[in-house]
Amino acid sequence: MHLKMVTIDCAEPRDLAEFWVAALNTKVASDYEGHFVMLAPWDSSGVGLGLQRVSEGLDGKNRVHLDLHTEDRAGEVDRLVGLGATIVDEQNVPGLAWTVLADPAGNVFCVGQSEQ
Amino acid sequence: MHLKMVTIDCAEPRDLAEFWVAALNTKVASDYEGHFVMLAPWDSSGVGLGLQRVSEGLDGKNRVHLDLHTEDRAGEVDRLVGLGATIVDEQNVPGLAWTVLADPAGNVFCVGQSEQ
Repeated sequence: MHLKMVTIDCAEPRDLAEFWVAALNTKVASDYEGHFVMLAPWDSSGVGLGLQRVSEGLDGKNRVHLDLHTEDRAGEVDRLVGLGATIVDEQNVPGLAWTVLADPAGNVFCVGQSEQ
Repeated sequence: MHLKMVTIDCAEPRDLAEFWVAALNTKVASDYEGHFVMLAPWDSSGVGLGLQRVSEGLDGKNRVHLDLHTEDRAGEVDRLVGLGATIVDEQNVPGLAWTVLADPAGNVFCVGQSEQ
């Protein structure tokens, strides 16, 4: 089995897609009448991002989250905040530092960077 | 930014890792005293799976989920159920059919297969 996509439940897939398209510098690959919006893979992993309409609201922290990596954490975090993300926390362990952010719908994700 | 990992919150990372190691036919890449267990990438995406200990229990459906694909959905679903997964639902749209499963900790994920 291979990882084809990671899907995020949300109230308004098209709205949330605007953030993630910009965040990942990708584009919408398909849009099923606004109920399911699939973003094209944005990196060499070939994994896509799905945004799926659900009726339930966000209740607490999402239990599964994306861990993105970058070589410029500070710059990427600034860019993401400019797009509508919110900084939740900063963390580090030896060799790795990461920022926990929430997307505009409140889903947390991490942006990490390896450190010497 | 590239997708490095998808992380699942759970009560007992080592226990849940047993399921996912077998499900994905991969191995444990690192284990931080049982608090965080990282599984090695299992496919060409290079994405890893993280299992992170949290104190909160599962409350409702996880809002972010993995979409795995296979060429043998029936066989893979049987195998996963044998490993401890539970079938939650079957769905299809033209060209794609998928099974919604829950891992032993209750996290839902999908196993899809393209159809002619």
